[in-house]
Amino acid sequence: MIDLKSDTVTRPTPGMMKAIMQAKVGDDVYKEDPTVNVLEERLAKMFGKEKALFFPTGSMANQAAIKLHTQPSEQLICDKWAHVYNYEGGGVSFNSGVSCKLLDGNRGMITAAQVEEAINPPDFYHSPLTSLVCLENTTNKGGGACYDFAELKKIRKVCDAHDLGLHLDGARLFNALVAKEESAQQYGEIFDSISVCLSKGLGAPLGSVLIGSEKVMKNAMRVRKVLGGGMRQIGFMAAAGIYALENHIDRLAEDHKRAQELGKVLTNQAYVKEVEPIETNIIIFYLAEEISESEFVMKLKEKDVIISSMGQGKLRMVTHLDYTQEMHEKLLEILKKMA
Amino acid sequence: MIDLKSDTVTRPTPGMMKAIMQAKVGDDVYKEDPTVNVLEERLAKMFGKEKALFFPTGSMANQAAIKLHTQPSEQLICDKWAHVYNYEGGGVSFNSGVSCKLLDGNRGMITAAQVEEAINPPDFYHSPLTSLVCLENTTNKGGGACYDFAELKKIRKVCDAHDLGLHLDGARLFNALVAKEESAQQYGEIFDSISVCLSKGLGAPLGSVLIGSEKVMKNAMRVRKVLGGGMRQIGFMAAAGIYALENHIDRLAEDHKRAQELGKVLTNQAYVKEVEPIETNIIIFYLAEEISESEFVMKLKEKDVIISSMGQGKLRMVTHLDYTQEMHEKLLEILKKMA
Amino acid sequence: MIDLKSDTVTRPTPGMMKAIMQAKVGDDVYKEDPTVNVLEERLAKMFGKEKALFFPTGSMANQAAIKLHTQPSEQLICDKWAHVYNYEGGGVSFNSGVSCKLLDGNRGMITAAQVEEAINPPDFYHSPLTSLVCLENTTNKGGGACYDFAELKKIRKVCDAHDLGLHLDGARLFNALVAKEESAQQYGEIFDSISVCLSKGLGAPLGSVLIGSEKVMKNAMRVRKVLGGGMRQIGFMAAAGIYALENHIDRLAEDHKRAQELGKVLTNQAYVKEVEPIETNIIIFYLAEEISESEFVMKLKEKDVIISSMGQGKLRMVTHLDYTQEMHEKLLEILKKMA
Amino acid sequence: MIDLKSDTVTRPTPGMMKAIMQAKVGDDVYKEDPTVNVLEERLAKMFGKEKALFFPTGSMANQAAIKLHTQPSEQLICDKWAHVYNYEGGGVSFNSGVSCKLLDGNRGMITAAQVEEAINPPDFYHSPLTSLVCLENTTNKGGGACYDFAELKKIRKVCDAHDLGLHLDGARLFNALVAKEESAQQYGEIFDSISVCLSKGLGAPLGSVLIGSEKVMKNAMRVRKVLGGGMRQIGFMAAAGIYALENHIDRLAEDHKRAQELGKVLTNQAYVKEVEPIETNIIIFYLAEEISESEFVMKLKEKDVIISSMGQGKLRMVTHLDYTQEMHEKLLEILKKMA
Repeated sequence: MIDLKSDTVTRPTPGMMKAIMQAKVGDDVYKEDPTVNVLEERLAKMFGKEKALFFPTGSMANQAAIKLHTQPSEQLICDKWAHVYNYEGGGVSFNSGVSCKLLDGNRGMITAAQVEEAINPPDFYHSPLTSLVCLENTTNKGGGACYDFAELKKIRKVCDAHDLGLHLDGARLFNALVAKEESAQQYGEIFDSISVCLSKGLGAPLGSVLIGSEKVMKNAMRVRKVLGGGMRQIGFMAAAGIYALENHIDRLAEDHKRAQELGKVLTNQAYVKEVEPIETNIIIFYLAEEISESEFVMKLKEKDVIISSMGQGKLRMVTHLDYTQEMHEKLLEILKKMA
Repeated sequence: MIDLKSDTVTRPTPGMMKAIMQAKVGDDVYKEDPTVNVLEERLAKMFGKEKALFFPTGSMANQAAIKLHTQPSEQLICDKWAHVYNYEGGGVSFNSGVSCKLLDGNRGMITAAQVEEAINPPDFYHSPLTSLVCLENTTNKGGGACYDFAELKKIRKVCDAHDLGLHLDGARLFNALVAKEESAQQYGEIFDSISVCLSKGLGAPLGSVLIGSEKVMKNAMRVRKVLGGGMRQIGFMAAAGIYALENHIDRLAEDHKRAQELGKVLTNQAYVKEVEPIETNIIIFYLAEEISESEFVMKLKEKDVIISSMGQGKLRMVTHLDYTQEMHEKLLEILKKMA
Repeated sequence: MIDLKSDTVTRPTPGMMKAIMQAKVGDDVYKEDPTVNVLEERLAKMFGKEKALFFPTGSMANQAAIKLHTQPSEQLICDKWAHVYNYEGGGVSFNSGVSCKLLDGNRGMITAAQVEEAINPPDFYHSPLTSLVCLENTTNKGGGACYDFAELKKIRKVCDAHDLGLHLDGARLFNALVAKEESAQQYGEIFDSISVCLSKGLGAPLGSVLIGSEKVMKNAMRVRKVLGGGMRQIGFMAAAGIYALENHIDRLAEDHKRAQELGKVLTNQAYVKEVEPIETNIIIFYLAEEISESEFVMKLKEKDVIISSMGQGKLRMVTHLDYTQEMHEKLLEILKKMA
Repeated sequence: MIDLKSDTVTRPTPGMMKAIMQAKVGDDVYKEDPTVNVLEERLAKMFGKEKALFFPTGSMANQAAIKLHTQPSEQLICDKWAHVYNYEGGGVSFNSGVSCKLLDGNRGMITAAQVEEAINPPDFYHSPLTSLVCLENTTNKGGGACYDFAELKKIRKVCDAHDLGLHLDGARLFNALVAKEESAQQYGEIFDSISVCLSKGLGAPLGSVLIGSEKVMKNAMRVRKVLGGGMRQIGFMAAAGIYALENHIDRLAEDHKRAQELGKVLTNQAYVKEVEPIETNIIIFYLAEEISESEFVMKLKEKDVIISSMGQGKLRMVTHLDYTQEMHEKLLEILKKMA
C-alpha cells in the first residue's frame, strides 16, 4: 500500500522505536518527565525563545496559542484557507470566542499590505478588536507553499505598528526551513509564538510543541490544563520527537525531491489539467475536465495507491518518511500508465 | 442640523409621545406589561408566526436568534458585509461560540447557489458543522438593496435540503416590504426567525422584536435573560413601537422618494464618481478621485449636514422620519452647489 | 391590588412621567443622548469614580462587570445566595466562562476571613485562578440585610493582598445607604465597580448603571455592545433615573418603616413561626408548620394581596414606592385577621 | 524513592513495555489505528455501551462528556469536592459555559435526596436549567470512598424523573469495582457516560476512555477534535491500556490491602489525630495538633518518602503498581519510628 493521503500516516522507524523503549519518563503533569523537559528546552533554544510546551496535537497547540494571544470577542487575521479556521473544528470561536477575518491570499499566503488593510479601527467598538495575525508555513491547502522571508518581516512590522500578536502554525515549518535554507532562529525572531509538529514530516507518532516568549507562554500550562492536554508519562512520545529532531529534518529534502519528480510526471500526462507549483512535499493537481475525480481516486486505490481529494477539483499527494524509493519508482510507473 | 448619518437618530413625533405617555405598563420580567404583550402578539400575527419577544436592541435580537439556532463550534453562512459579522462587536463568536462563513455577495445579498456551495460536509468533523444561514433585507452596507423574493425561496429550499436554520436580520425589513410591495406573511413563511427594528425607519426610540416559530423561540426568554435583556416597565417604549407600526410604515415611501431625488442630484455632480443603485432609504456614493472624503464630510458639516463615511471610499446618507421636506429641498440645493 | 412580590413592580409617579416627557434625547450608541450623559456623569461623581455606563438591566450591568474583571476559566467568590450566581440565568459561566466559589454566608453576607480562605493558590494551575469577589448590599435572598462597613473594609484589604477585583451588586444599595446612614463616596472608595438599579426602590421603569474606575471601565462600551445593550434614544428612561435620584432616595426610609411595622404584626401572629431580622424594605418570614405556604399565598391573593414564595419555606414581602400608607393600613388589618 | 503522592506516577512494567513495542498503529484521526479501535470496542463491550472514545487525559474525557450532555448557561450538580469542579482548571465554565451546583456530600459522595433538592425549577428561567449530574467513584478528595450501589440506583431514578443526564468520573472506578465486587455492566446500566482512566491504578502511561450511549456519544469525535484531542499513532499508548485491562485490574486488591495496613499503623501512632476510613488505595489522615504538616512531609522526604498535602490539614498517601511489597515493609517501619 502506497499511502500519500497525508504525511501524518508514518510509523516509527526502528531507531525511533528504540528511543521510545529507552525513554526515561515521569509524570509530566507535575513537570517530572525528564524526556519531555529535554524536548521542550531543546526546541525553545533552537528557536531562540524562552519557553516551549508539549501538546498532544497541533490543533491544541494552535488553539492554545490563539487563546493566549486573545480575549473573547476579538478578531484574528488569517488566510481564507488557514488550518486554524477550516480544520480545527471551529475551535477559534469555541475555545476563544474569537472571529476570523479571512484574507484572499496566494496559495494560502497573505501579504503585509493585506494584513494592514484588514485591521479594524481600534476605537470603533461596533467591530471586533483585531489582536492577532496567524500565518501558516508551509501552507497546507496552499500546496506546501513557502513564505518569502522578506514578506514575513514586513508583516511583523505591521503587527508592531498596530499592537498585534503574530502566531505561526508551523505544522510543516521544518519543510520550509529545509526548502528555503532558513533557520529556526530567524523564525523565533519574527514570531511571538510558533507551533511545530513532531508527527507529519518528522515522523513521530504524535505531538506538537508550542514555542513562545515568556510573556505569551505565561499562562500556557493553565490553558493546556483547561483544554485537557496535560498528560502523564508522555515522555515515550517526546523521546520519538527528540529522535525525529536529530534524524529526520535533513531527510525532508528527499521528500521534496520525490514530490518534484511526481509533479514532473503528472504535468506530462494528458489526464492532468494543471499541477500547482511544488515547493516542498505536497503535490496539488487538477484533472482534465472529462475525468471524474472520484473515479480517478478509486482507480488508484485499486492499484494500492491512496491520495486525497480536497474538494473543488483539487487532488493532493503528500510524500513522507514511509514513502520509500521503491514505492516512488512504482508510483511513477503507475501514473504514467493511467489514462 | 440635517443629520443623515443613520435612520437611528430620529426622535418621537408628538403622536408617538402621546402614546408613550398613555401606555399601560407592568413588570415585563414577570410578563405583566400589557403593552409589551400587545406589541409581541401583533408582530407575531403580522408575520404569521407563533411567538415574538421584545429586545432592547437589534444586535441582541440577532445575537439571541443565532444562539437559539446554533451550538458552540458550529458555523453560519452570511454575506461578507453582514451586520451580524461586522457590527455586533464579535458577538457571534462571543455569545454563541460560532464562526461565520463569509460569501462574496452582490451589494450584501447572496444567492442560493453560493449558500449551497458553502455548506461544510456534515460528516467531515474537522470542519465546523454548518447550521444556519443569516440574511439581511434590506442590506445595510449594501446600500439598502432588497432581495428578489424568488431567490429567498430558493435559499429556503437549500436550507431545507441541508437541515439549516434561516434567520433574517430585518433591521430595515419594512423598507423592503414597502419598496417591493411584499407582505410580512410572505417573510414569515420563508424564515424560521426574523428580527425587526422599531427604531430606524419606524422612528421609535429603541427596541427590536424577534419573531419566530414555537420551536426556535422555545428558549428565547432564557437567552434574553442570560444576555441581560429582560427589562421592567419597558411598555413605554413598546407603546412607541405599536404607534410606529400603525403610523410609520406606509410613510417609508417618502424616505425612499427623497433618497431617489438625492441620488439623481448626486449623479449629476462632477465631484461624484458613482452612485450605487438606490432601492430604499440609503444612498451610497463615491467621490471623484481628486476629492478627499474626510474633507467633503467636513465641508457638509460646516453647512450643518451630517453624512457618514463607511470606509474604502464609501459615503452614506440615510433618509428618515426626521428628515423633512424642508430639509430635503435645502440639502438638494447644497449638494448642487458643492464643488 | 397590593403587590408586594417585588419593588420592581412600581410605575412612574406623575413627576417622573413629566421628566420622561420633557427629556432631551439623542442616539446613545453614538454617545449623543444628553440625558444619558448627564445621568452617567452624575452617578460617577456621586460615587467618586471616573466612569459610569447605562445598561438596560441590572443583570447586564453585573454580567458586564464580571466580564470586565475576569478572563475565561477564572473564578469569582460570592455568597451561596448571590444574585449573580442564582438569578442571572447562569450568565457568569455563559458570558464570561467563569465559575463561582460559593461561601456559606450569614443572610447573604460573607466575611473577609471566609474570602481569604476561599482563594485558590495562584500557582496551582489545576484549580481556577481566583480573580474577583462579588458582594451584594443589601442582600436580596438574605432579606435586605446590610453589610457592616468595617467588614467591607476588611474584604477590600484581602482583595488588595491577593490582587482580586471587588464588585458590588448594588441593586438595592440606596436602601443600605439610607438604613445605615452611609455615603455613596464611601462605597466608591471600597469597590472597583458598583452596579446600581434605577428601578426597584428608586421607582424608575428600568435601567441600571455600572460605575467604576477608568481601568475597569476601559472596555465597558465594547462589552455592552457585544451583549446587545447599546440602545438608541434611551434618554427617556435615563430622565426617569435622574428624577429618581433627586426625589426617591430619602423616601426609602418610609418603605423601611412600613417593613418594620409589617414585621412586628407578623411576629405576633400564631400562623407565623419566625420573622427574619428586617433592616430595609424586605420582610422574610416562615409559617407555622401546620400551614401550607401555597395555600397562604392563595388566601392573600383572594384578598388582592400578592407576596412571593422563595422556596424552602421562605415567604417574602417587599415594600416600595407604589405601596401607599392606605394600602399599608389595610394590609396590617388583613394580616391580623389571617389564621 | 517511595513516591505515594499519587497513583499517576507509575511507569510501565516490562510486560506493558513489550505490548507497547509490538503495537500495530495507524492514524487515529482517520480512525485507522487498529489498537485504539480494539481498546475502544473492548471497553464499550465491558460496560455494555454502544460507543467508546480514547482521550489523552481524564480531564478531557470528563470535559467532553459535560459538553456532550449540556448547553451553555445550564447547570450540573456535583459534590463540593468534585474533580470536575475543583481540579480541571475551571473547564466546566470555560469549555461548556456551564455552572456547578455544589452539594455538601459525605466524603465526596452525594445522595439522591440531595440531588433532587438541588434541581432548579425548569420553568423558572432566572435560574440556570439543571441538566446533568456528575458523580465520582471512587472519590478522590473523599479518600477513595466507594458509593453504595443502591444509592446510585436512586440517583438514576431522580435523573430519569427530571430528565437529567448522569455522568460518572471513573478515574478510579476499577478500584471501586474490585473493592465492592461490582461489575462494569452494572455501571453501564446506571450511567449515560463514564470516563475511565488507564493511568492511575491501571498503570498505563496515559489515556482515558469515554464510554457512552449512542445518543450521548453522537458528537464525541467533534468535541474531541475541537478540544484538540484527536491524536495520530496513539495506538502505542492504547496498547498499554489493553495490557492494563488484562493484567492490572485484579491486582488492585493488593494496593487496597497495603493501604489498609498503612492505615492501621497510622491509627496507632501518637502523632496521628485521625485516619479517615480506607476503602481502596487512598489513605487520608490528620496529624495531632502540635505537629506541623509541612514539617512532617519534609521529614518523610528526607527518608525518601513522598506524600502529599491536600490543604486544610489533610495528608494523603496513594498506593499503586510501583509501590512494591519491599517498599511497603520499609514504609511501615518508617511510620512506626516517626514522632
